[in-house]
Amino acid sequence: MAESNHLSHDWDLPAGEALLQDVFGIVMDELVRKGTDASEKSHYSLQKGAAFLGMGTDSIRLVKADERGKMIPEDLEKQINQAEAEGAVPLFVNATAGTTVLGAFDPLEAIAEVCQQHGLWLHVDAAWGGSVLLSQTHRHLLDGIKRADSVSWNPHKLLATGLQCSALLLRDTSNLLKECHGAQATYLFQQDKFYDVSLDTGDKVIQCGRRVDCLKLWLMWKAVGGSVLEQRVDWAFTLTRYLVEKIKLRKGFELVMEPEYVNVCFWYVPPSLRGQQDSADYCKKLAKVAPVLKERMVKKGSMMVGYQPHRTLPNFFRLILGNPALRTADLDFFLDELEQLGQDL
Amino acid sequence: MAESNHLSHDWDLPAGEALLQDVFGIVMDELVRKGTDASEKSHYSLQKGAAFLGMGTDSIRLVKADERGKMIPEDLEKQINQAEAEGAVPLFVNATAGTTVLGAFDPLEAIAEVCQQHGLWLHVDAAWGGSVLLSQTHRHLLDGIKRADSVSWNPHKLLATGLQCSALLLRDTSNLLKECHGAQATYLFQQDKFYDVSLDTGDKVIQCGRRVDCLKLWLMWKAVGGSVLEQRVDWAFTLTRYLVEKIKLRKGFELVMEPEYVNVCFWYVPPSLRGQQDSADYCKKLAKVAPVLKERMVKKGSMMVGYQPHRTLPNFFRLILGNPALRTADLDFFLDELEQLGQDL
Repeated sequence: MAESNHLSHDWDLPAGEALLQDVFGIVMDELVRKGTDASEKSHYSLQKGAAFLGMGTDSIRLVKADERGKMIPEDLEKQINQAEAEGAVPLFVNATAGTTVLGAFDPLEAIAEVCQQHGLWLHVDAAWGGSVLLSQTHRHLLDGIKRADSVSWNPHKLLATGLQCSALLLRDTSNLLKECHGAQATYLFQQDKFYDVSLDTGDKVIQCGRRVDCLKLWLMWKAVGGSVLEQRVDWAFTLTRYLVEKIKLRKGFELVMEPEYVNVCFWYVPPSLRGQQDSADYCKKLAKVAPVLKERMVKKGSMMVGYQPHRTLPNFFRLILGNPALRTADLDFFLDELEQLGQDL
Repeated sequence: MAESNHLSHDWDLPAGEALLQDVFGIVMDELVRKGTDASEKSHYSLQKGAAFLGMGTDSIRLVKADERGKMIPEDLEKQINQAEAEGAVPLFVNATAGTTVLGAFDPLEAIAEVCQQHGLWLHVDAAWGGSVLLSQTHRHLLDGIKRADSVSWNPHKLLATGLQCSALLLRDTSNLLKECHGAQATYLFQQDKFYDVSLDTGDKVIQCGRRVDCLKLWLMWKAVGGSVLEQRVDWAFTLTRYLVEKIKLRKGFELVMEPEYVNVCFWYVPPSLRGQQDSADYCKKLAKVAPVLKERMVKKGSMMVGYQPHRTLPNFFRLILGNPALRTADLDFFLDELEQLGQDL
């Protein structure tokens, strides 16, 4: 990243995952992205963006993902060819580095290759996974990101910079956002100031009245340094391994899959459902467990953890180990507490 | 307002003046708004919104304003008729309650009348002026706002709620934003929660990762009460009158016009330019005064005040008296300081 992309002045763009950022200033009539109903989806912000921009959600082509939620580059190629055969003009590909549920990283090198062959803008939605670049140990997950034309990144996720803090990194050096969004309101963006007015970023962004969100990241980075941020990222991976091994050993807990990132997806299977995997209504019954446990933990005030269904899989918990203050004892508590809350189910 | 509009759940929308809010979910091919190059303009966010939504800025029709920056309802009527004659379908009128530079309030009753006759959505951009509704003394400036279909309001302006805090008030009770923006991402907006999921506002707004900005307003309101907020608004008007009278009495200061709101627009005329109003390059020279004074005050660190040109008027200062901690002594200091900084010009 560092050598081939520069950090745009615009990186304190409005937060919102990759919503508004994905489509900044690109005249388009077709979007290409990953995810189908039968596979891991990219962030829903792409749908909203296409709707909001008046292009309609039909302009988004879905690309198949494998069983781990990673985009299949061969299917991307196929979708592009098909779109072109239909007379559409594909304009950009949205790859995801760290999907929301499974934490999957798309194969960026292979996707970049396809984009290069077809002359397509490659955007990497690294809102969730981008912080991994700070870790020498784990940054390989993002191999190929240096070939992206644009990258979105939310330091407010894994780095825990206070909400909101979203970055848009652009390879472009032509002041693209100014060209696209500049309105030259003379009453706000005076050109006769005594300093370099190119430092004024206000006219490049979509919103007018907004906070300087990048300051939070800058202050944090200055305060603790890159090595501490790296340690925090690595610690999240370490905790993930710890929790995964505990889950494997523990009766009544079942992993959805081995995590690639720090999303630990698993079911708590209560006593009454254990050994019933082959019964007809097992999935239906299992789907009701997570909501009940969530209600109980919230009412008790002991924990918070998200759950969701995925493809045909019934509701499962998704624990995100991003808080650097977490210790292994907290994870033991977490598992014990789930078991206690669900022992009568 | 209170009796005829409800405070939508969506009022913690992304900040950004009225940018994204003006055009929420309205299928449109023509916008009608106030402002021309020869008159007070509405907020530049409308231009940006039309560009961003892919409609193009040509879809915005400009309506003439009078010399005080207020929309002329007769010209609005004329523009609507003209648009219809050209086969366009006018969809909404944007009126402004408190323009940025002059602080002008459009005649909302008369505009609402035109909108009603033509079946047009009336949006009132009260980003800057909306807080005046809290004052029994001054709320008449917004007479007619209860007829609006939508109102945007930035408590982070006159009420000084921390940036960002923007409200969108809708007359609609059909859950319009949900209809327009809901993406039903199953991994985020679970429907099987144990509480009333209609309280979840996340799926109604444009952004995903965003702060709960309305909490700041709620806390402030709870903490100090409506009467204190009213006093603050009234105090801003009181200070405005104080400053205006001082400016009138003071040599070298000239009002642009009597303020209607708390925007005090004036020139500082340095000694060398006094009495030179009839010279050919007077305006050109006067235009250079404000930037020089701004540079000097910033470098000295004594004050901050904005300036801008307006129509054919050269750069003038615009002091906004919105800080409730201001006292008349601060305003005396302000005028003294300007005079001192500019005495050699």
